[in-house]
Amino acid sequence: MTVTFSVLTLFPEMITSYCDASILGRAQRNQHISVNVVNPRDFTTDKHHRVDEPPYGGGDGMVMLCEPVVKAYESLLPLPEGTPVLMMSPAGEPFTYRHAKQWAQDYEHMVFLCGHYEGMDARINQLIPNVQPVSVGDFVLTGGELPALCMMDAVSRFVPDVVQKAGSVSADTFENGLLEYPHYTRPAEYRGLKVPDVLLSGNHAAIDAWRLEQSIGITQRVRPDLWEKYQEEKKLNKVDKKKK
Amino acid sequence: MTVTFSVLTLFPEMITSYCDASILGRAQRNQHISVNVVNPRDFTTDKHHRVDEPPYGGGDGMVMLCEPVVKAYESLLPLPEGTPVLMMSPAGEPFTYRHAKQWAQDYEHMVFLCGHYEGMDARINQLIPNVQPVSVGDFVLTGGELPALCMMDAVSRFVPDVVQKAGSVSADTFENGLLEYPHYTRPAEYRGLKVPDVLLSGNHAAIDAWRLEQSIGITQRVRPDLWEKYQEEKKLNKVDKKKK
Repeated sequence: MTVTFSVLTLFPEMITSYCDASILGRAQRNQHISVNVVNPRDFTTDKHHRVDEPPYGGGDGMVMLCEPVVKAYESLLPLPEGTPVLMMSPAGEPFTYRHAKQWAQDYEHMVFLCGHYEGMDARINQLIPNVQPVSVGDFVLTGGELPALCMMDAVSRFVPDVVQKAGSVSADTFENGLLEYPHYTRPAEYRGLKVPDVLLSGNHAAIDAWRLEQSIGITQRVRPDLWEKYQEEKKLNKVDKKKK
Repeated sequence: MTVTFSVLTLFPEMITSYCDASILGRAQRNQHISVNVVNPRDFTTDKHHRVDEPPYGGGDGMVMLCEPVVKAYESLLPLPEGTPVLMMSPAGEPFTYRHAKQWAQDYEHMVFLCGHYEGMDARINQLIPNVQPVSVGDFVLTGGELPALCMMDAVSRFVPDVVQKAGSVSADTFENGLLEYPHYTRPAEYRGLKVPDVLLSGNHAAIDAWRLEQSIGITQRVRPDLWEKYQEEKKLNKVDKKKK
C-alpha cells in the first residue's frame, strides 16, 4: 500500500527537503508513501504571477487568491472519492494522534493546502470539496508548510512498515492515554548518574510496573487534562464490564 | 537585536533548508535571527559514531546516548545566563502563542534539543541546566526537528521587524483570545461566489463588527474551550472595572 500526500505550497522545497531525508525519505524509496508537490504560482494567468492581494475590508497582510489555489487543486483530479483536503489554519480543528491513526487507515490520498501571508480567500473552502481546516496547535506560523509536514510525518508513522518496529508505535505517548515513561540507555552510570536499578533487574513485571507508575506521575504533573480523561475512560470501562 | 537559535540535531539539513527559505531566510540575512546547528554525532568518541543504543529494561526503538548530546551542548558554552534548553517531547508542556511571545521578549539565545528514535536518555535533563520539555501537540513524530522549527518560526514572528507589518501579528488568531475571522481578496466575484457586501462597504465600524461576529462564531463552533476562556476573561475584566 502506498499513501499519497499532495501538497499545495508556494515553497515546494520546504516540503521536499524534509520528506527526502531520514525516515520519510526511506518510506518514499520503499513506496510506502508518495509525496507530490504542486505550486499554485504555476497556475497564475497574469504576467506578474500574483498569488496574493490585500484583504477586502482593510487590514495588514496579504490573502492568497482563489484562482491559483483552486486550479492547482483541480490539476490533481481525478482523486479517490472522499479524499480529504486539509487546510492548514490556526483556526482549524486541533490535530491529534487519533487523526493520524485514523487517516492512515482511511485514506490512500490526502491533500494539504498550505497558506502563507495572512491566509487564504475564504471562498476556497466552498470551491474545493471536502476541505477540513486543521491546526497543529495554538500558535501562529509564517506558513502552513510546517503543520502539513507534522501531519504527514505523524500519519506516515501509522502506514504499515514505515516505522520498522511496530512496537515503538504502539508504546507511544498517547496510545494508552498517558505520557511516555523516561528512557535510559548505556552506560549504566554517566558522570555519576545511575540508571534506575529496576531497569537493570531483568524482572519484566517490575519494569512494567515502574514504567506505568512513571507514566502516571508525568501525566499528572504535566498534563492534568489527559490524566482526568484517562481516569474517566477507566471508570467507563469498569461500568461496561459490570453491565456484562 | 538578534535572537540566536542553537539546534542540536542529527539531521542538520532539515533545520537549515527550512530556515534558509522565505521569511526566516530573510530574517537571517537581516540579522534579526541567527540559526546555529550542532550535530551530536560530531561529539561521539567511538569509531562507529554511535549516537543511540537500545533502551535498558527492554522495548523497541533506540534511545539517544547522554554523551554526544551533553558534549554538543557544552560546545555552545558560554551561553547567556538562564538560556532555556527546550527539549522536544510529546510528553512536554504544550507550546502556545503565549510562549512564543514571551520567549521572543525574554531570551537572546535559545537551545533546541531534537530527539530521534525512541527519545533521549532521561539523565540528559539532569546533566544540562534549564532543560524544559515542550510539545507542539498531542501527536508523535519521527523526530524533534519539526517541533523545533514550529517553535523557532512562531518565536521569530515576535522578533521586531521579522514580520514586516506589525499589524498582521497583532490581529492574529489567539491575540485577543478568539480564532481569526475569514479573509477575502480580489476578485469580488469568483465562479459565482461573492465577497460579503459589508467588506466592500468602506464602513469600518461595520467591518469591525462583522469580523468580531465571525470570530466569535468560528470560536464557538470549532473551539468551545477557547470560547469559555474568552468569556471568563471578559467577566474578570468587568469585575476589575467595577472595583475601580
